Amino acid sequence: MTRASVVGAGMTTFGVHESTLAELFATAALDAYDDAGVGPDDVDAFYFGNAMGGQTENDTHLAPKLASEVGIAGVPAQRFEDACATSATAFKNAVQAVEAGIHDTVLVGGVERCTPETGLGTGEMTRIFASASHRQYEQPTGLTFPGVFALLTKRHMHEYGTTEEQLAHVAVKNHANGQRNPRAHFGRELTVEDVLESPVVADPFHLMDCCPFSDGASALVVTSDERADSYDDPVDVTGVGHATDIVPLSAKPVPHATQAARDAAAGAYEQADVTADAMDFAEVHDCFTGAEVMASEAIGFFEDGEGGPAAAEGRSALDGDRPINPSGGLKAKGHPIGATGAAQIVELTEQLRGDAGDRQVEGAERAVAHNLGGDAGTTVVSVVEVRS
Amino acid sequence: MTRASVVGAGMTTFGVHESTLAELFATAALDAYDDAGVGPDDVDAFYFGNAMGGQTENDTHLAPKLASEVGIAGVPAQRFEDACATSATAFKNAVQAVEAGIHDTVLVGGVERCTPETGLGTGEMTRIFASASHRQYEQPTGLTFPGVFALLTKRHMHEYGTTEEQLAHVAVKNHANGQRNPRAHFGRELTVEDVLESPVVADPFHLMDCCPFSDGASALVVTSDERADSYDDPVDVTGVGHATDIVPLSAKPVPHATQAARDAAAGAYEQADVTADAMDFAEVHDCFTGAEVMASEAIGFFEDGEGGPAAAEGRSALDGDRPINPSGGLKAKGHPIGATGAAQIVELTEQLRGDAGDRQVEGAERAVAHNLGGDAGTTVVSVVEVRS
Repeated sequence: MTRASVVGAGMTTFGVHESTLAELFATAALDAYDDAGVGPDDVDAFYFGNAMGGQTENDTHLAPKLASEVGIAGVPAQRFEDACATSATAFKNAVQAVEAGIHDTVLVGGVERCTPETGLGTGEMTRIFASASHRQYEQPTGLTFPGVFALLTKRHMHEYGTTEEQLAHVAVKNHANGQRNPRAHFGRELTVEDVLESPVVADPFHLMDCCPFSDGASALVVTSDERADSYDDPVDVTGVGHATDIVPLSAKPVPHATQAARDAAAGAYEQADVTADAMDFAEVHDCFTGAEVMASEAIGFFEDGEGGPAAAEGRSALDGDRPINPSGGLKAKGHPIGATGAAQIVELTEQLRGDAGDRQVEGAERAVAHNLGGDAGTTVVSVVEVRS
Repeated sequence: MTRASVVGAGMTTFGVHESTLAELFATAALDAYDDAGVGPDDVDAFYFGNAMGGQTENDTHLAPKLASEVGIAGVPAQRFEDACATSATAFKNAVQAVEAGIHDTVLVGGVERCTPETGLGTGEMTRIFASASHRQYEQPTGLTFPGVFALLTKRHMHEYGTTEEQLAHVAVKNHANGQRNPRAHFGRELTVEDVLESPVVADPFHLMDCCPFSDGASALVVTSDERADSYDDPVDVTGVGHATDIVPLSAKPVPHATQAARDAAAGAYEQADVTADAMDFAEVHDCFTGAEVMASEAIGFFEDGEGGPAAAEGRSALDGDRPINPSGGLKAKGHPIGATGAAQIVELTEQLRGDAGDRQVEGAERAVAHNLGGDAGTTVVSVVEVRS
């Protein structure tokens, strides 16, 4: 069967930008065009993700607007919004369209502005983020996302004895990796003590357990594996799993299992005909340190309950046996919501090409990305491999 | 090749509802399940459209929320937003997934709340709608959607001599049809004088040239044509075209041509291997009377410049030779943004089954739907046929 391949990858730095959504996205898209060696005339569809532009700056219907900015007005273009998994569902639909022969070469990507450059402060932005939690059952209680993941993590701690120190190791590791990533939001080193001594945001999370609000964009050029033969350094998308889980949180039978991630991972590994053991590293959705621990178990990198100890033992470090988030993850690289999912695939692409510089996972040939949305209601898991 | 078929269609009444988005959508979805004779266990994916829930009521990440409401938590679920074409892009992606064999049976639909039941008045809602126009080049000028379509229509009048009276005939005809549709927002008769004497909103549009803000939901069960053999009264989706056009308005070479509609129609007719002449009727995106005139030309029902005279001559009436909007269209049936595209397919399905009651287009065997988003930036055109 036809597979999809990534032949171009681009992104902005993640951080604070004065640019418009259009300027940010165009920077990433033109970077991806250049990387692939294509121009707008080579692109025949656009799968785009943005989560909150309507709420933050009254800007919707962005697919044709951004298509116009990057020279592809006319092609079928659609916007996806699935909370923090927004550009991963765009990627999944794009991969499926290429595999099905509906389109030859597509542009995929996402953009978001979440910092005070939008004119909105942290409080207002937190309220907007909370729109992804349940409108009737969660928002009225005052629950915002630090609380959502604190609840899940507290249950994980209860079940398995996961500790705040173990969680802190996730933040320390991701900051160490982020320091090696020139496009990361945060560049400073962090110690376990720094994390534990930072203010509590939502027990068990301290400020330094939480990812930042970032501005940024990411873009990919995806084509069929046959066409990819004529490009430099393609990487092949061998599996994409996508699942949802029941919401609100209170309806989930085993909340800390993050069942959608398990279902999505099973789907992706089955499509790719591999197991988690075959993965050389993972990019996972570490919006909070506890989320990385749960994700590392859900995608099969560690047994249930072993995610916390593994982080503390350095197993998920760049030089560990199961590296996780070499990019720095959401925690240090940053989290411009709609750009995050596609940016994970940018990282996989660069790593598998051996182009990741100081944060290179040595010899990486196969990797997995895990992108989660909302109160663990959506997860997309993708397997990408060096062309064999 | 495998085709997609609609085997279930459901919708709420369009109008003013006190229900939540979840309650509205569940009403439509359960109606579609019942119509198809399926249950949640038969559905393996969800393609969902909502345009403005984040802005109107801080409610996003609706795909898994609504999947949970209608018994399909777990399946891949994604939300689309493409302004007023929102559930048509969801429908397109669903149809493609079924044609490609990615999913067997999918739920497609959309929901929106636009009336003061949201707690927002007409002014605030107009500002939110305007988010679909260009953020940098159009919104700052004060342009809102009556103005967008007034500009396009004024150009059409300039080029072809289209008159306000001809536009008024579109409203009169759609209200006449809407009176025959028990789910329409507006049930009252209208005369040309009523339209021309109503207050001017944006020259050349009077209040009665404009569709209302409505609440409502629509849903479809779509499966492969092979599987559809075991259902009652399936209708086949033989072509779906989707195109964008450059934005802002000022960048369009021939604004009143609504080029995306022409490209989408050409794509849909080519896939279906038919011409416009073979269509027994059309549902088109008449957010304003002028929009119907332009759409009727773009989809090939009338020659360029003939859309206005044709409306005045009754050619697009229920008993005309080229019926348009037998449902009453957006103008009389109503326009709950995210529900509109899928609701057009509900109308096509009921008409092609001969189930449209007093508004039945006699002997209809093949029909086309035209759903437009934003400043004519997105259009999806779908051809649906009686199973031969």
